[in-house]
Amino acid sequence: METEGKPIHCKAAVCRKAGEALKIEEVIVAPPRSREVRIKIICTALCHSDIIVWKLEEAPGGYFPRIFGHEAIGIVESLGENVNEVKKGDLVIPTFLPDCRECKDCLSEKSNLCSKFPFSISPWMPRDGTSRLSNTEGEVLYHFINVSSFSEYAVVDIAHITKIDPSVPPNKACLLSCGVATGVGAACKTAKVEAGSTVAIFGIGAIGLAVAEGARLCGATRIIGVDLNPNKFELGKKFGVTDFINPRDCNNKPSEVINKMTDGGADYCFECVGLGSLVQEAYACCRKGWGKTIILGVDPKTQLNFSSYDILHSGKSIMGSFYGSMKPKSDIPLLLQRYVNKELNLDDFITHEVGLEDINKAFDLLLEGKSIRCVIWMNK
Amino acid sequence: METEGKPIHCKAAVCRKAGEALKIEEVIVAPPRSREVRIKIICTALCHSDIIVWKLEEAPGGYFPRIFGHEAIGIVESLGENVNEVKKGDLVIPTFLPDCRECKDCLSEKSNLCSKFPFSISPWMPRDGTSRLSNTEGEVLYHFINVSSFSEYAVVDIAHITKIDPSVPPNKACLLSCGVATGVGAACKTAKVEAGSTVAIFGIGAIGLAVAEGARLCGATRIIGVDLNPNKFELGKKFGVTDFINPRDCNNKPSEVINKMTDGGADYCFECVGLGSLVQEAYACCRKGWGKTIILGVDPKTQLNFSSYDILHSGKSIMGSFYGSMKPKSDIPLLLQRYVNKELNLDDFITHEVGLEDINKAFDLLLEGKSIRCVIWMNK
Repeated sequence: METEGKPIHCKAAVCRKAGEALKIEEVIVAPPRSREVRIKIICTALCHSDIIVWKLEEAPGGYFPRIFGHEAIGIVESLGENVNEVKKGDLVIPTFLPDCRECKDCLSEKSNLCSKFPFSISPWMPRDGTSRLSNTEGEVLYHFINVSSFSEYAVVDIAHITKIDPSVPPNKACLLSCGVATGVGAACKTAKVEAGSTVAIFGIGAIGLAVAEGARLCGATRIIGVDLNPNKFELGKKFGVTDFINPRDCNNKPSEVINKMTDGGADYCFECVGLGSLVQEAYACCRKGWGKTIILGVDPKTQLNFSSYDILHSGKSIMGSFYGSMKPKSDIPLLLQRYVNKELNLDDFITHEVGLEDINKAFDLLLEGKSIRCVIWMNK
Repeated sequence: METEGKPIHCKAAVCRKAGEALKIEEVIVAPPRSREVRIKIICTALCHSDIIVWKLEEAPGGYFPRIFGHEAIGIVESLGENVNEVKKGDLVIPTFLPDCRECKDCLSEKSNLCSKFPFSISPWMPRDGTSRLSNTEGEVLYHFINVSSFSEYAVVDIAHITKIDPSVPPNKACLLSCGVATGVGAACKTAKVEAGSTVAIFGIGAIGLAVAEGARLCGATRIIGVDLNPNKFELGKKFGVTDFINPRDCNNKPSEVINKMTDGGADYCFECVGLGSLVQEAYACCRKGWGKTIILGVDPKTQLNFSSYDILHSGKSIMGSFYGSMKPKSDIPLLLQRYVNKELNLDDFITHEVGLEDINKAFDLLLEGKSIRCVIWMNK
């Protein structure tokens, strides 16, 4: 049946209340408008950022009913007007972060923070501020950060679409839509980890493991993981983690342990949990003279405190890493090539795979700390 | 008269109480011990860091009687044991910051923060923690940050001595002992200002002017100075300042003015006053995506507050610059060569010159904001 230009009725996992189990419902996905594409999602993965906003009753969350999901891969089903970059049938990765290729930031090598479509945890399409999602009763459903991939179909702005080569299995490729690209990029592009250096990673979830993987690719020789879950060390070893600290097993703060074991601190310290106190810990075990503290964890409320005098005298720097400083359209293909070359480990991030009807199991697994990435297949 | 191996009686400006005028007294400068040299000071300049600690009744100040002064140049009068790096008669610049050339930091290209002699606002010689300074009544006089150059003679550890070529006039060369090297280095080495970029400088004293000079040398095309003193703009132009903001003339915060005039913020923002609130202003007008906020001002007490979420999403970084990331023994000669090549402006930093007996005039001029650098000659 020809679907182009028509609304598509399909299944999606809809969230109707903060923190509540999603419901598989029939939804209507409108045709793409100008500069938009509609894609048939092949598979999507659950990222911790979905969970953070899913829990929120108020801003930046609080828009319900909503379709979450933003790590995904799909096939272009149809095009809105003024789309030349992809064609029907192309394999694409949607990303929460745009890459408009028009603004000063997207044209610069130094920034991945599009000025034309500044990122926000938006419930709307980015270009016209409306929704393409509704249900059979005509109720509007809210989008989630420009993707909304917990659905068989999604409408995504062309600025958020990266065309890729189909040589990588889709469940692996979709991980570059957010988490893995963020961590690998934080090490390789934000921090620019140097060969032979020492890295400390606070939080060994998908992002932390991806940081380790990035650091390993950059030639770091010592990669210290810090996590409360003792099972993370064995997993971490697959991504280059060489040392493991469980704060529950230590009398001293992790920063003190790291300062001692590295004789003065790690060259690069990454906070991947989203706790202000851990950012301070990361800063505290950064090597004086050149150490970098990189913030990856999402913590919307915490204020960090630093002594001006200490920053002046320590030679340490503090920076954030949003999507790992990666520019989706140019960097995702490079990462996929590294997977094809057997340099980049994507396989071991996937700990579970379910069908869309079991999406709440994916939530449970991540909430219980049992999964790293659970891939949700639309047709399993 | 041969002085080698003997205590030298000479004149020095002694501070006997916090914030009080210095007194010219006869002091005794002991012979240098192992790894030390005694130098005959030619001239010295007053730096704002002298004033900060001179005012303090308590730690890190509070040691009296004390001989201040740390921007200087002199001739080696005699050597302690185990000194091979310089010989009698060499022209040298003493620096508050060591460069031991033995520790991991001094051997690294990435750090200028010696691990062997960690910097502190110390009242003692660095290697054995004693004083070489006393007066004719046998009273011990305290050192100031490894130099104490408000004296005709000073004993300085070899780690704090840089031998230089005598082709540059001493009153110009001595400026590289602290302030000018700090500012130029902050732009060129810490921030690594790129050609064509925009720079904002908060505080147009010697450090801020030196940042402008460094940014100009790096090819910055727009250099915005912020200062409450309207006279600073004309002076700033000599060092490449292209735009001037006097917060007293504006209805909005300087950061808002800069964000507007640069269409989104400056690429590099330098805080050169030592006020936490100005660091926050500097951060607020740093370009998202790549902006760097560099702290140069000494503010021993202020805690800075940053939103973790903002650092994560802004792509801005925060760093300090201690002595401009300069390594004294390798970088001072390079800066002197740039002066010889007529690239680096040192001349216009010197606004006043006095003899040692008029040193309190130098304090008055700096406290009143009338001088940038007042050079104090030992024999004028």
